Amino acid sequence: MTAFKNLMDFTRQTVALGQISGRLGWDQETMMAEGSGAQRAEETAALEGVLHARRTDPKVTQWLADIHDATLDQAGQAQMRLIREQHTRASKVPGDLAAEIARVTSSAQGIWAQARAAENFAQFAPTLERVIALKREEAQAIAGDGDVYDAMLQDYEPGTSAKEIGAMFDALRPRLVALRGKILGSETTPRALDRDFDPDLQMALSNKLAQGFGYDFNRGRLDKAVHPFSSGSGNDVRITTRTDPRNPFNCIYSTIHEVGHACYEQNISQDYLLTPVGNGVSMGVHESQSRIYENQIGRGAAYSDYLFGQMTQTFGDIGVADAEAFFATVNRVSSGYIRTEADEIHYNLHVLLRFDLERQLVSGELAVADLPEAWNARFEADFGVKVDKPSNGCLQDVHWSVGLFGYFPTYTLGNVYAGCLNQAMRKDLVGLDTEFAQGDTSRATQWLAQNVQQHGGLFESRDVIARATGGIVNEQPLLAYLEEKFGQIYNL
Amino acid sequence: MTAFKNLMDFTRQTVALGQISGRLGWDQETMMAEGSGAQRAEETAALEGVLHARRTDPKVTQWLADIHDATLDQAGQAQMRLIREQHTRASKVPGDLAAEIARVTSSAQGIWAQARAAENFAQFAPTLERVIALKREEAQAIAGDGDVYDAMLQDYEPGTSAKEIGAMFDALRPRLVALRGKILGSETTPRALDRDFDPDLQMALSNKLAQGFGYDFNRGRLDKAVHPFSSGSGNDVRITTRTDPRNPFNCIYSTIHEVGHACYEQNISQDYLLTPVGNGVSMGVHESQSRIYENQIGRGAAYSDYLFGQMTQTFGDIGVADAEAFFATVNRVSSGYIRTEADEIHYNLHVLLRFDLERQLVSGELAVADLPEAWNARFEADFGVKVDKPSNGCLQDVHWSVGLFGYFPTYTLGNVYAGCLNQAMRKDLVGLDTEFAQGDTSRATQWLAQNVQQHGGLFESRDVIARATGGIVNEQPLLAYLEEKFGQIYNL
Repeated sequence: MTAFKNLMDFTRQTVALGQISGRLGWDQETMMAEGSGAQRAEETAALEGVLHARRTDPKVTQWLADIHDATLDQAGQAQMRLIREQHTRASKVPGDLAAEIARVTSSAQGIWAQARAAENFAQFAPTLERVIALKREEAQAIAGDGDVYDAMLQDYEPGTSAKEIGAMFDALRPRLVALRGKILGSETTPRALDRDFDPDLQMALSNKLAQGFGYDFNRGRLDKAVHPFSSGSGNDVRITTRTDPRNPFNCIYSTIHEVGHACYEQNISQDYLLTPVGNGVSMGVHESQSRIYENQIGRGAAYSDYLFGQMTQTFGDIGVADAEAFFATVNRVSSGYIRTEADEIHYNLHVLLRFDLERQLVSGELAVADLPEAWNARFEADFGVKVDKPSNGCLQDVHWSVGLFGYFPTYTLGNVYAGCLNQAMRKDLVGLDTEFAQGDTSRATQWLAQNVQQHGGLFESRDVIARATGGIVNEQPLLAYLEEKFGQIYNL
Repeated sequence: MTAFKNLMDFTRQTVALGQISGRLGWDQETMMAEGSGAQRAEETAALEGVLHARRTDPKVTQWLADIHDATLDQAGQAQMRLIREQHTRASKVPGDLAAEIARVTSSAQGIWAQARAAENFAQFAPTLERVIALKREEAQAIAGDGDVYDAMLQDYEPGTSAKEIGAMFDALRPRLVALRGKILGSETTPRALDRDFDPDLQMALSNKLAQGFGYDFNRGRLDKAVHPFSSGSGNDVRITTRTDPRNPFNCIYSTIHEVGHACYEQNISQDYLLTPVGNGVSMGVHESQSRIYENQIGRGAAYSDYLFGQMTQTFGDIGVADAEAFFATVNRVSSGYIRTEADEIHYNLHVLLRFDLERQLVSGELAVADLPEAWNARFEADFGVKVDKPSNGCLQDVHWSVGLFGYFPTYTLGNVYAGCLNQAMRKDLVGLDTEFAQGDTSRATQWLAQNVQQHGGLFESRDVIARATGGIVNEQPLLAYLEEKFGQIYNL
């Protein structure tokens, strides 16, 4: 057992250093002064160098060879699986290539931002080609004879494949398109908010709602940042949100969304603290937690009752007649261009579009030069609207510029998982809506902590969901939930 | 030159990792939630492990052997001197001993805090004995045949000795004791503040004053913390202060003090960024900057003019008649028990007491059990007051509990250096007071940047001061400054 103990001691330190890296990222987005950026880049690079050396350390290779997984308990075996995966991945990618990817993607983000501001895709195209070529090379090094795009997926959703995801998404697409068609053709138009909302009061309310959802402020904090995010694992998990005076829902639902991510990390068993198992298992399962907090609970009819009361108590008359109207307001459907502003239905159509196009970009089937045309055609087909400018089309997301291929599908996978979990939870727990209407989400969040969150990386991602749902992992619960909820709101 | 380049590349990364460690410390004091403490300790320990391994890396030993310092330019030679000192020190201390010191001092701080709260020195004595024994063992490992206390001094004020410092301090003591005697026997009693001051307004004013002193908010930030401090080097230097509604000077002068430290770090030549030379050269020179900003400038008659205007503008009537009375108020002398609350005269008497006692503790001449008695006797001799309880006596400072022996004298060394610099600066620059009275400190701070701050660790600490003052490095300018200023205020 000495090899395993040594490996775990070494790994625990590596994970601790990884947490520090995350804290620096948080600091950069929330606290750091602008003029500190260049020095910070060098500090971060030094830490990344240490982490890379540890991930590929020959001592780890030797320990991994010396340990017989079968002699370990369940948690030990899960640790071994994750350590092995990370070590193998890091060892397969040549150091020069990793450094080149870091260099190119770091400047690519700026080039993308400029091209987007200039509404000029051609300005970004050569950089995107370079990023794709490098990420393809990296994925080939990892995949060997396997599929290149599937190798990319493993960074975000280990254990899944484009085939498996594609089958779900192909089943989703026609029913989502049909649903949005019916909604936009209906007579119902939920009222939008149309006044200013004090940003400080938005933050105060967000704070209260975060506490209500079980976020532990004794092991984290809530700040403002340009983009909402959750950062850190275990006992230091911090979240951010943003405020827009015209749109308090941006602040409130971003908070609830990030609280879902953060509670996942905070509620992982303390037995796994600062180990590979002590992290959320995948981006998809992570997103299932943020989405079920935000949507299935936070945008449900019962919680809307509570939130309507909180809103009027905080802001006075918000221009919406009653809780029922408010429920419709927070679930307004409209076919905008921008993924991050999309409602629950269009959001998934956005993701499906990106999933299909990025696979074609990676395989070479779609040339970068042809991306705008392909994007715009697909958008018009699914959204019924012509893209008016690149910043509303294929230049809207930062992801591809920084090399995040295989990341987009985890958003909708998260929605699919959230649908499954919501169905199972409501079968297990009777009377949730009565509690939600009082703002009490404790039985629901405890159910999620018990059935999903506490396990961290103990099981593979699909297994986590399957264990919680009695084996149901497919798109049907999500579709049923969407069709029922929006059918009710829009009288379909 | 390859060895030198390799050494500098390696060192630059080490310094960058050290900056990260500093940032974690800042975060812990300002942002981190309480419940994150235990995890943070583990994260910090992991990073310290990495830093220790790098500081003693055999590659460094080899590079140091391969490089001929004489072939390098001035900056290169200074880098080599500092790298050599750090590597030698780290290599001489056995890893087990370093770990044991870290372990013991980390719990000793808590034991000290408890003993202080309980007013029970005996409760802390065994721990203090253990800390002294360990620090003595460490210093012996470093000193070899040399003096043990001098070895301790090198961590804070490299290049100096107890003999050199002792000579200065022995010259200071009688004149300071005489000065305080005359002041406390005089008829003059400056008015104290006696109202509440809004903490938010205190912070807003501190912010303005920090900017006025040249602190660059584009490469730093000002927050609240329990203990004011400055943290970081180069382009990310952050400061903290605190607010007490009854005592706005605490906030204001802590800010100006930390601005002095921070400007030193911010103004070091960018050529030395993230290298050993890119840090303030010693604690004494650091303290000279914080003190000259805080006292020689900030508590001078001319700047008091400006500050009186700012205070009344910010807070309305502060209960002090005019700028002249205000100048006396910010320089009130009173013989309190606590070092951190002391005026410019008593502060040094506090330090001299600690310097003498800690040398005796380290040499074994004074037993830990006898410390309270020795402290109280010396305090009564110099301050004319009997110590009433341990928290007002030898239990007031955290330093010894965490192993900081050799640190105290740098406070008064800083005052001595500040006295020398102030004298030289006023010889070089005519008409400063007219500018200070308008709140314009730019010529003074530029003089300090030019003559002291930009050099970082290029010269040894005493040399930095000597170069700026034309060779004057002694206690006379400080004494002359104190006797003149307080003579004027107290009509002596």
